[in-house]
Amino acid sequence: ANALFSSLGTTIFTVMSRLAQEHGAINLGQGFPEGLEPPDVIEAARAALTAGPHQYPPMMGEPVLRQAVAAHEARFYGLDIDWEREVLVTSGATEALADALFGLIEPGDEVVLLEPLYDSYLPIVRRAGGIPRLVRLEPPHWDLPREALARAFGPRTKLMILNSPMNPCGKVFSPEELVFLADLLERHDAYALCDEVYEHLVFDGRPHVPLMTVPGMRERCVRIGSAGKTFSLTNWKVGLIVAAPALLEPIAKAHQYLTFTTPIPLQRAVAYGLGKDDAYFDGLKADMQARRDRLARGLEALGVGVLACAGTYFLSADFRPLGVDRPDAELCRWLTTEAKVTLVPVSAFYAQDTSDSPPPAHLVRFCFAKRDADLDEALARLGRFF
Amino acid sequence: ANALFSSLGTTIFTVMSRLAQEHGAINLGQGFPEGLEPPDVIEAARAALTAGPHQYPPMMGEPVLRQAVAAHEARFYGLDIDWEREVLVTSGATEALADALFGLIEPGDEVVLLEPLYDSYLPIVRRAGGIPRLVRLEPPHWDLPREALARAFGPRTKLMILNSPMNPCGKVFSPEELVFLADLLERHDAYALCDEVYEHLVFDGRPHVPLMTVPGMRERCVRIGSAGKTFSLTNWKVGLIVAAPALLEPIAKAHQYLTFTTPIPLQRAVAYGLGKDDAYFDGLKADMQARRDRLARGLEALGVGVLACAGTYFLSADFRPLGVDRPDAELCRWLTTEAKVTLVPVSAFYAQDTSDSPPPAHLVRFCFAKRDADLDEALARLGRFF
Ligand SMILES: CSCCC(=O)C(=O)O
Ligand SMILES: CSCCC(=O)C(=O)O
Repeated sequence: ANALFSSLGTTIFTVMSRLAQEHGAINLGQGFPEGLEPPDVIEAARAALTAGPHQYPPMMGEPVLRQAVAAHEARFYGLDIDWEREVLVTSGATEALADALFGLIEPGDEVVLLEPLYDSYLPIVRRAGGIPRLVRLEPPHWDLPREALARAFGPRTKLMILNSPMNPCGKVFSPEELVFLADLLERHDAYALCDEVYEHLVFDGRPHVPLMTVPGMRERCVRIGSAGKTFSLTNWKVGLIVAAPALLEPIAKAHQYLTFTTPIPLQRAVAYGLGKDDAYFDGLKADMQARRDRLARGLEALGVGVLACAGTYFLSADFRPLGVDRPDAELCRWLTTEAKVTLVPVSAFYAQDTSDSPPPAHLVRFCFAKRDADLDEALARLGRFF
Repeated sequence: ANALFSSLGTTIFTVMSRLAQEHGAINLGQGFPEGLEPPDVIEAARAALTAGPHQYPPMMGEPVLRQAVAAHEARFYGLDIDWEREVLVTSGATEALADALFGLIEPGDEVVLLEPLYDSYLPIVRRAGGIPRLVRLEPPHWDLPREALARAFGPRTKLMILNSPMNPCGKVFSPEELVFLADLLERHDAYALCDEVYEHLVFDGRPHVPLMTVPGMRERCVRIGSAGKTFSLTNWKVGLIVAAPALLEPIAKAHQYLTFTTPIPLQRAVAYGLGKDDAYFDGLKADMQARRDRLARGLEALGVGVLACAGTYFLSADFRPLGVDRPDAELCRWLTTEAKVTLVPVSAFYAQDTSDSPPPAHLVRFCFAKRDADLDEALARLGRFF
């Protein structure tokens, strides 16, 4: 009877994390970082918890955090944001996505989505009454398929979701790709929901370029950030939305009825964190890049095919060069139970029911946001196994 | 274009709290308690924040909290709950309501709602595709209108929402009323979403009786609790859902895409809190009952009509005995700007657009969950004004 949600599976992250635990496997599946929690940000939360207050903050978020977000947008992207009317604090980026989709989509609106995609997008787009138009990026380069994308836009397009840096494939959209997207959005009078939770995890000296900074896009983009990702504290569930007032207004209406507010101590600590000096943000990036390189080099030494990764916590790998040709989901179960290393299948990031051709089935996603010792042990286990 | 949410107003609580601040009024409008935060529960959160971990907890909630919820259900209501399959932790009761409505309603399902109603119910029911069937309780006794209710149920009824103790009117449904409802639910094969966030605020020695404990109702009820209300920490945003596995499953699917998880330190502190001794729960109740009585006696001394209040933070009052006959919304603005006391109009708890007859316009809601000094000062201001 409850087909809309009950037909859905449990997220692949939960499924694989449970399996990892059952089998004593090293969990390089679910995307959460280890060993990078900034003690001063945690201390700021503790102090705020002691100080109070303990009752509802304003529905849009604590003023001190909204001000810190506006300062962050100016500092990193040169954006001039009105903290009172253009910033909304949410209980995590997942809620931010839901707020934006429920707030902006009217039943019958078309929403352009790029595959591979994060697993909450499609269920929420559908639950909000949106009609998904899926466009695939192809491995190993994940280039923007410009013609297919142009065809996916039409008179009923309300929104596209752009995830850059992109999970699971580690792609960072190039300035030229962003300009191409901006042009499509303008021509079709559509909006972009920009999931940029990995904004501070772009490697190799490249900058993160929000689509919102492309000319003409300031009023068309909803930019989503994640304190959990930026401060390596994924259980805090503090998400951030920046958008022009006309867009933010219906999103805030959704927020007021989905969660209403977010715990004050965590909001205040994130406000403190966003003001940290460049050394913090540069250090996070450098540290995570070193982890990426450590894992990539180790996998290459084993003979595994490693795809390029420009950002995020994730890199994709291809075990076929080792002579392993199992479908990715089966491969992930097998590696968990036998090699005791847990990954997630890239095919899980594709719509399960709507497409003509099957998704790629030869790629697995590694999360490298883990302690060196765990990365090394995972590599050792894979080495012993193959 | 975004008619679904953008046409909605800002919650009355936000509107009135802003107005209170602008005019230096004592805020007896928005429902949050003052001066009752248990220091040991806050200390438990601080300790959990220090101890970590800092990454995602299980999607259903921390095991220690789900176990504490099951123990709470056994201790207070004699319910035998399987903590692994029948408890879900959410980011506040507002999220719990949204999870349940998005998880259970299919477009076209009818949902029976009792007016006056909490302000998130109707927008979310509609956004989930549900068709609201509104039934009114009438002041001053707010008795269950049995015939109208029986007429509201039909073959397409999926769900009713029952808020007991009931905001804003302070009604606690009687055992006979609950049996009547149970009978309707069984006859129509429908479910009840039981918003029981004020479960520990039932006064005058009466027990709180969850509909779930009525024979036949164990598998038909989704019971929602609020740590914010139970521990007077409304910014923590920890909500709790108890339901049979078949009902909880689609609700958990909604939860995984609306917020996914809730901060660990707050979950662990709430687990600690739920285990506190009877003196805590009895003390909370006694303290709040004393506040209710202090306010009610003061208002009566001024000649204001005070309606009965069996539970919640709220009592309704009628200023007509003082010769004041302004519509409630206007009265609330006037009292804020002139008497410097902020209340909320009871008419704000009615659907704005769907009914044949206008809602009662002569009642205002007082929140008495405030410090004695604030209650006394509010009474003094009203006394000087009239
Ligand atoms: C919400 S749990 C999954 C974390 C994550 O973003 C991922 O692994 O892709
Ligand atoms: C969510 S803010 C309002 C608090 C409340 O429940 C009320 O005042 O009725």
